Amino acid sequence: MGQRPITFLRQVVALCTFPELMDSPSFPEDAKWRARRILQGCGGQSVGAYSASDGVQCIREDIAAYVEQRDQGVPANRDNVFLTTGASDGIMTVLKLLVSGEGRNRTGVMIPIPQYPLYSAAIAELGAVQINYYLDEDNCWALDVNELHRAYQAAKQHCQPRVLCIINPGNPTGQVQSKKCIEDVLHFAYEENLFVMADEVYQDNVYAPDCQFHSFKKVLYEMGPEYFNSVELASFHSTSKGYTGECGFRGGFMEIVNLDPEVRAQLVKLLSVRLCPPVAGQAAMDVIVNPPRPDEPSFGRFHEEKAAVLGALADKAKLTEQILNTVPGIKCNPVQGAMYAFPQVFIPPKAVEEAKALGMQPDMLYCLRLLEETGICVVPGSGFGQREGTYHFRMTILPSPEKLKVLLEKLRDFHIGFLNQYSDLQEPQCRVPA
Amino acid sequence: MGQRPITFLRQVVALCTFPELMDSPSFPEDAKWRARRILQGCGGQSVGAYSASDGVQCIREDIAAYVEQRDQGVPANRDNVFLTTGASDGIMTVLKLLVSGEGRNRTGVMIPIPQYPLYSAAIAELGAVQINYYLDEDNCWALDVNELHRAYQAAKQHCQPRVLCIINPGNPTGQVQSKKCIEDVLHFAYEENLFVMADEVYQDNVYAPDCQFHSFKKVLYEMGPEYFNSVELASFHSTSKGYTGECGFRGGFMEIVNLDPEVRAQLVKLLSVRLCPPVAGQAAMDVIVNPPRPDEPSFGRFHEEKAAVLGALADKAKLTEQILNTVPGIKCNPVQGAMYAFPQVFIPPKAVEEAKALGMQPDMLYCLRLLEETGICVVPGSGFGQREGTYHFRMTILPSPEKLKVLLEKLRDFHIGFLNQYSDLQEPQCRVPA
Repeated sequence: MGQRPITFLRQVVALCTFPELMDSPSFPEDAKWRARRILQGCGGQSVGAYSASDGVQCIREDIAAYVEQRDQGVPANRDNVFLTTGASDGIMTVLKLLVSGEGRNRTGVMIPIPQYPLYSAAIAELGAVQINYYLDEDNCWALDVNELHRAYQAAKQHCQPRVLCIINPGNPTGQVQSKKCIEDVLHFAYEENLFVMADEVYQDNVYAPDCQFHSFKKVLYEMGPEYFNSVELASFHSTSKGYTGECGFRGGFMEIVNLDPEVRAQLVKLLSVRLCPPVAGQAAMDVIVNPPRPDEPSFGRFHEEKAAVLGALADKAKLTEQILNTVPGIKCNPVQGAMYAFPQVFIPPKAVEEAKALGMQPDMLYCLRLLEETGICVVPGSGFGQREGTYHFRMTILPSPEKLKVLLEKLRDFHIGFLNQYSDLQEPQCRVPA
Repeated sequence: MGQRPITFLRQVVALCTFPELMDSPSFPEDAKWRARRILQGCGGQSVGAYSASDGVQCIREDIAAYVEQRDQGVPANRDNVFLTTGASDGIMTVLKLLVSGEGRNRTGVMIPIPQYPLYSAAIAELGAVQINYYLDEDNCWALDVNELHRAYQAAKQHCQPRVLCIINPGNPTGQVQSKKCIEDVLHFAYEENLFVMADEVYQDNVYAPDCQFHSFKKVLYEMGPEYFNSVELASFHSTSKGYTGECGFRGGFMEIVNLDPEVRAQLVKLLSVRLCPPVAGQAAMDVIVNPPRPDEPSFGRFHEEKAAVLGALADKAKLTEQILNTVPGIKCNPVQGAMYAFPQVFIPPKAVEEAKALGMQPDMLYCLRLLEETGICVVPGSGFGQREGTYHFRMTILPSPEKLKVLLEKLRDFHIGFLNQYSDLQEPQCRVPA
């Protein structure tokens, strides 16, 4: 999508990969210093060696220090930090650890709808029970704790709800949860003895001026020791989002608090089967949690690049919402955070009928038509889940502002044409080929 | 263990990671050419982008070309090639695909004993049935097809044997299978309709002058189209072994032939949940399958480094076998390939009794004592499986020749002391602390 990598991150990883570059004057000293430190933590001082299954120890220390700083002093312990192969791997591993039982004793996993499909896929793969709680579209996709209660009570009839997954900032929905809402969720988890999985990979992607990222861990801490010392909570982060977007490195970490020591031993065993997360990805993660300090030579460039990426994303979040909301039959909540808009689209009854005749979801018909007519690829809301009878699509806000503007205008024109084509006032049009 | 990375591999990966190095005169043109080609196959020409879930297309093409050349012209198709996060990930994914059923219909997976514990761990994780077939220690750990028949028939009483795993060259046992043996195994798999998983990660690690690596796929091809067009076969390779030893990159690939298209679709879905293998690891794999050609500037250095690593491994394989076989009560098969010796050790009855009293395996007691007395860490045979009443340990041949020699001499002295201590002719000694 044209987003440039952060120079400093790539410098550190390149230095780790090919340490002969330590002699090169074109690499800054602070990058070399970090690379040397990472390599000292690696077996044989090489990123080619397996690391410990839970990650390179000094990187786990850096992560704990970062989390502590992010959460304004809430204590973090490197023993609770596990490097992962992207966040997906961590989420999958923790779910695997938590799912058990058969029939009515099968573990139920509560997930938001709309959700990121990793969750439904993992739940299906593990044979767990998926418990849907619906986000409140009329209220900027907020999480309503009453809806959690409803979903929980209904699910208790046929499974053992044991896990509560939250995505904050939201994917695909782009909302940022308020502190009050997080408190309510954690109180609910405490009451019902649920393991909380907080997918916080978009923690650096908050754009709306009235929103702020609050980590679940920090909020839990502020609720007092009764909560902080008992609620089992895993938080996931990644190199793939934020201002780095380094998906291909498959870097990430999870911090898990209040894990029973015996369960922790099983987790370590599970992680060991896969040997270790990619060490270059661990190094990339280290740069994110240990960026240049103001007194270091790379500080200026790093912060310029970081601010440019995040500033552009904020502009594009606003632009996307604004243009989409000018289109009749499209309604888009503010993109408060993350990297997506998830607008609701009105699909005329005739188009719904046509989709049914073709054996596809109406929003799939819509997205296929959009792709065919404009070349724009968005993902139908049915892939994420949505309330019956509503239709959405997910689009990223990642293209450059110029491209994004053109894209949104084309999308608007397509949508108007689509509405016209399927309007009751018109003659039926030719069908989409099956 | 002191093994140096292959310069060319690290150069290519560093160039991919930090493309500004393309302008550096200290990087050779053939490394730049490969890095450019890999980057052209990456989204946005960046290793930071997700690749396709089955890997970067041009790397899959290089792998197919490599396999074709390795197998002297046996056709290979990039559509059968999937990049993986190390070989373990591929093995786990394929097993996941194959395991199903309940009770007597549960999938049985045949594995060698001794085995690499990834297999038993994966089988346990998936709830499959582990079917042990024993390698023939008296015959250089050869695979005897009669033993396969025995194990298969016994297992059929309580599960559905569906998968046959082979490790060649062997881990932990270091044997290299003969072509005749592979033919027998494939014939057996054909007759019993078994899916063959050939763990061939040590394909470049063959040291015995009378041994040669034969890929299962090539042997299958030579058995004729009746076999080649029907036996389902997955072969696994990795950046972690061979002459590169790049474990931390988590690179690998699998080639699967005769996979039903519908099953293939499910495999792609499974792979997609994890998004993609680390792209730097894919780049490392590409260098292994597409090394410098004789007319390229890096050819000389590359082949020097490769020959040095493989030559040293061959020397160390011989040295290990020789020294171990001078020790009374230790019997070591030739280390024909891979990276390990798996000697049988005689453990005196008194030591066996003592271990039982301490609630541990006798070979665990032996290895713990070795570690405590000498600082040498080897893995008890009970971690890999062994015939009842026999005891082994696995040690790598990776340390430098000088260190390895010292290590083996210390081990010899320890062993002699251990025998003396537990000999019937002596007074009982103080016990190992529990």
